[in-house]
Amino acid sequence: MDAIAPTGKVTTFLAKLNDALEAQDADAAAALFATECYWRDLVALTWNIKTMEGRDAIAEMLRATLGSARPRHLTLDGDATEAGGVSEGWFTFETETGRGRGHLRLNGEGCWTLLTTLQELKGFEEPKGPARPRGVEHGVQPGRKSYAERMEEERRELGYSRQPEVVIIGGGQGGIALGARLRRLGVPTIILEKNERAGDSWRKRYKSLCLHDPVWYDHLPYLPFPDHWPVFAPKDKLGDWLESYTKIMELNYWTRSTAQSARWDEAAGEWVIEVEREGRPVTLRPKQLVLATGMSGVPNMPKIPGMESFKGDIHHSSRHPGPDGFKGKKVVVIGSNNSSHDICAALWEAGVDVTMLQRSSTHIVKSDTLMELALGALYSEEAVANGIDVNTADLIFASIPYKVLPAIQKPQCDETKKRDADFYRRLENAGFMLDFGADETGLFLKYLRRGSGYYIDVGASDLVANGSIKLRTGEIDRITENAVVMKDGTELPADVIVCATGYGSMNGWAAQLISQEVADRVGKCWGLGSDTPKDPGPWEGELRNMWKPTQVDNLWFHGGNLHQSRHYSQFLALQLKARAEGLATPVYGLAQVHHTG
Amino acid sequence: MDAIAPTGKVTTFLAKLNDALEAQDADAAAALFATECYWRDLVALTWNIKTMEGRDAIAEMLRATLGSARPRHLTLDGDATEAGGVSEGWFTFETETGRGRGHLRLNGEGCWTLLTTLQELKGFEEPKGPARPRGVEHGVQPGRKSYAERMEEERRELGYSRQPEVVIIGGGQGGIALGARLRRLGVPTIILEKNERAGDSWRKRYKSLCLHDPVWYDHLPYLPFPDHWPVFAPKDKLGDWLESYTKIMELNYWTRSTAQSARWDEAAGEWVIEVEREGRPVTLRPKQLVLATGMSGVPNMPKIPGMESFKGDIHHSSRHPGPDGFKGKKVVVIGSNNSSHDICAALWEAGVDVTMLQRSSTHIVKSDTLMELALGALYSEEAVANGIDVNTADLIFASIPYKVLPAIQKPQCDETKKRDADFYRRLENAGFMLDFGADETGLFLKYLRRGSGYYIDVGASDLVANGSIKLRTGEIDRITENAVVMKDGTELPADVIVCATGYGSMNGWAAQLISQEVADRVGKCWGLGSDTPKDPGPWEGELRNMWKPTQVDNLWFHGGNLHQSRHYSQFLALQLKARAEGLATPVYGLAQVHHTG
Repeated sequence: MDAIAPTGKVTTFLAKLNDALEAQDADAAAALFATECYWRDLVALTWNIKTMEGRDAIAEMLRATLGSARPRHLTLDGDATEAGGVSEGWFTFETETGRGRGHLRLNGEGCWTLLTTLQELKGFEEPKGPARPRGVEHGVQPGRKSYAERMEEERRELGYSRQPEVVIIGGGQGGIALGARLRRLGVPTIILEKNERAGDSWRKRYKSLCLHDPVWYDHLPYLPFPDHWPVFAPKDKLGDWLESYTKIMELNYWTRSTAQSARWDEAAGEWVIEVEREGRPVTLRPKQLVLATGMSGVPNMPKIPGMESFKGDIHHSSRHPGPDGFKGKKVVVIGSNNSSHDICAALWEAGVDVTMLQRSSTHIVKSDTLMELALGALYSEEAVANGIDVNTADLIFASIPYKVLPAIQKPQCDETKKRDADFYRRLENAGFMLDFGADETGLFLKYLRRGSGYYIDVGASDLVANGSIKLRTGEIDRITENAVVMKDGTELPADVIVCATGYGSMNGWAAQLISQEVADRVGKCWGLGSDTPKDPGPWEGELRNMWKPTQVDNLWFHGGNLHQSRHYSQFLALQLKARAEGLATPVYGLAQVHHTG
Repeated sequence: MDAIAPTGKVTTFLAKLNDALEAQDADAAAALFATECYWRDLVALTWNIKTMEGRDAIAEMLRATLGSARPRHLTLDGDATEAGGVSEGWFTFETETGRGRGHLRLNGEGCWTLLTTLQELKGFEEPKGPARPRGVEHGVQPGRKSYAERMEEERRELGYSRQPEVVIIGGGQGGIALGARLRRLGVPTIILEKNERAGDSWRKRYKSLCLHDPVWYDHLPYLPFPDHWPVFAPKDKLGDWLESYTKIMELNYWTRSTAQSARWDEAAGEWVIEVEREGRPVTLRPKQLVLATGMSGVPNMPKIPGMESFKGDIHHSSRHPGPDGFKGKKVVVIGSNNSSHDICAALWEAGVDVTMLQRSSTHIVKSDTLMELALGALYSEEAVANGIDVNTADLIFASIPYKVLPAIQKPQCDETKKRDADFYRRLENAGFMLDFGADETGLFLKYLRRGSGYYIDVGASDLVANGSIKLRTGEIDRITENAVVMKDGTELPADVIVCATGYGSMNGWAAQLISQEVADRVGKCWGLGSDTPKDPGPWEGELRNMWKPTQVDNLWFHGGNLHQSRHYSQFLALQLKARAEGLATPVYGLAQVHHTG
């Protein structure tokens, strides 16, 4: 209630921390933290995305980084607040190379969580607001080139007579968001997209698809959706938005372009990427290579005995064309996660006889419940009305250490179970195998740990519950000419089999493009090391290999949902810009590789 | 300094005004105003754009409108402020049909200026923010159409099997801004654009062109430029933005489409417009027709003796292709306003021998000075930092009655003269005929009164001053095979003559499209009736025929710079929406026609 007490508390703490940091006293700084404590750094001190857990880890990080990073001028920004014995506040700070924004939480013992994020590089600030360009310079200059001529020249030269600094493979939301940030930072970049138009990766999916995340969570950098944008954008509308966005942001976006191979040229210190652009070969030689082909890797096609004998159409969900061609046929969809539910519902809507084949338990959460309980405080109309803009929301989100998340998510998950008890009961009565995550913490942790194993219900669950979508559970024994046969002997007649069986790790792309050796050196992408299904330990504290340096120099992985593409592209772009400008970027705590994929 | 005193004052005033209005007591309401007083109404009470000047005019308007409009719930919004003896504040209010926003200024005597603006129609609010659509509805519906299918259906049907409510002729910024607002209001609209792509009306202009107004003044509705947008956008960048904007806003934007003729079908109560769309005839039958072909009308080609004998290339500035084809030629540009300066400078930059032929005096103001003195308080990075968003700036701008403008502009103009005295001296020394408007009030009033007679200097004036662009002043006697001959006998050899001789009134488009009779009934467009050159009296108090009902039912004129296209499209869109929904829209004080063009 009283804004002065927490503000005084946080101000005093920041002054002490600032003193310790300026005195290069790692132990004194670490001693200001509580017994249970976390310092999450996004590229500000560590040139890495890293969470230090506990005083010792914090002291070790500071010993390694204080000398070069020299963080200073920690200054409270706005008033601090207090709730449940925890004071929290925002602060700004500087390092040797940049300016940052931070957030901290204090409990009775000291600092509980600290977030430090790099916001801009000194001398390489984005030209925005008061620093925006003038546009065409007034005054007259004989023979000067117009904007259109300069743009045309850049399009003609970049990748041919002049090499880009960065090549991004994959022109979905990840590549586009990163490309926009690099454009604002003045880093010459080419984005390679295999489709004909930006946005096609959405347009080409099944026709009823809409975003499962709400609009407030989905903005791209710099150009928020207008305020009439629907809560759940249909795929084609999002595709069109992405296409306009690439134009407005003036990205060098090469459509109908695929990277055939890439290798690191050690002598030249650059990648050599063989590209086919609209049917013609082009060799690109960037310093940095970013794989932004989605948070998922190569489609997983299951190996099922007898598959090759199947006479009908069998395809992976990523190649599913939508329901229109399947009227009058019997379709079996293997899998029970998001894609399977969406595909089954669209088939049912089109009047197709469809069976969902569930092999293992799935977490289901109703979209409305998720929006309200999990996202509402940060990403909603109410949050906007409370002055929480998307950048602030992203930083609050980022301020919660992954280690702490299960304890925060568990009560939300419990509340979800209670609120939708009847819904879950109906699903179980229909034979659906439900779970709520290994530790009953729900969707978001499943997403972070394995990126799969759930469905955000936007309607299909009712069809499963009432039998409109037929449900079969259990293990598959084999596939015959015209059926899927279960271990219990049941035979499911099928004209079409859709394998909604997920994707491998993103480093599979590196194997395809570069080499298995490089993919293995990078190791598994995504996941936290939570020691839960499909996310083996040891604990990593951050998503593996995402948006940060990997064991392979100059190779980066970028992906995730729209929120992550927006937020983490900022930090990946700053890392790339620093390297392009030749700044020292000593990486602290480069993650070890424990799993190859 | 003290925020409480003015807030109390304004609150008390609003309560009294509210009481008088609710009591339907026009005289009591008018008596609350100062001797010199203005009530400017944008569609809230009058269904017109109208300024009432003086207590009598206010009382008369209220007598006519109170019964139907029933304004009420006038409520101060935020704190009032005080400066120089004038208290001012914002307020909200309601009418029978809508909700509004207003602004008022009180002096010692009573209310000096009052602005009332209609912001939304009850029951027909824009679906934005908390009222935004859900997007694709969750749940399942057999046979439902996807977003892409629904969009495709609309594109296929509108104008063919289903008629639009509104047709807008002209797809520049005016038509686009209005189209976006009508789309949000759910009014089926088709925009006709003669060019191949949205934005071509900018792209096709001479290559060095950039906006002369700064970015903060230029936003379109709903989707502001991102904050790296240049201060003065180059024409092609603006063209590309407009093109993306039409797509993002999902406008029914017909390119390569021209209206051949239009007539009002009295029996059917609709326009019959013969259109050629991509070479094929289409007949459109909308209820409302908007001419948005620019604030200027048909190009003025001067009639000069001997013109027909000229052997070279003679063309109007609107058809000038830019300098590239004119190397090695002698070019004479007739006229000395914006277009002439821009064209001359681009020709000089390209190394062409160019002469500007000035026939009458011109107002020149340096862009930087204009930005700082005239726009800085409302449209600048500082204004943004002070929390003045573009909507607020537009309303403050709108709150100043045209009658009061000269007294406000005069000191700015005087300051301009002082600040740039050396610049003006150099121009006069070169023989340039300068003016600062009939009453020395500068650019903005010239713009409002006649839309011409000035140049916003972005560099060409230096070329005139130093003789790089040759300057000749005086009257033309005749044109020969290869020269322009002045009244004083001087001969200006010419291979090319560009007539930068301006445009007629917008109702000229109605003459071309509909009939001279209709054009004459509409009368002259633009101008205030200031009794200054090219703006004959009597005093009108508002721009003639712009964005408001004309003497010809269901025919509307929309145009102006980006600022006006943005701001006034709001009120035109609300007028059109109200008619589309069949609401009563009794127009008060429809302007009389005093001049036919």
